[in-house]
Amino acid sequence: MKVTVIVRLKPAILDPQGKTIQHSLEQMGFSEVKDVRIGKIIELNVEGEDEPTVRARAEEFSHKLLANPLMESFEIAVDGR
Amino acid sequence: MKVTVIVRLKPAILDPQGKTIQHSLEQMGFSEVKDVRIGKIIELNVEGEDEPTVRARAEEFSHKLLANPLMESFEIAVDGR
Repeated sequence: MKVTVIVRLKPAILDPQGKTIQHSLEQMGFSEVKDVRIGKIIELNVEGEDEPTVRARAEEFSHKLLANPLMESFEIAVDGR
Repeated sequence: MKVTVIVRLKPAILDPQGKTIQHSLEQMGFSEVKDVRIGKIIELNVEGEDEPTVRARAEEFSHKLLANPLMESFEIAVDGR
């Protein structure tokens, strides 16, 4: 099954990379861009019989490896849902 | 308007960071994970009156700054569409 994990910085955490991109865009003439946040999208192919098991395993490995729970939150989709 | 840009490595491009994550997951007991690809998700707040204009501007700045057209492809959503 296709698993997609989106990892975002929590809202209270500053995003210097996003700020840099916003600043570059402004200098390039895209001054209508007011806020930029950068996250990760991790796309995995996961073997498994049923969606609830695959989702539960994905929750587990996302928490343990893909996201830093202190600074990041994550969101999981299995086969697009 | 809320603009989301997803930047992925093109399929032909190797993803060593993805391979490393797959290997780590395997060592942690998640051997059902068979393929891992890492991309970026950039979420922007863009001022603008109408969706087609905002989308066209987003195409332009994604091509110019957010993605490397040689190695990456990108996908844009405006207000979730």
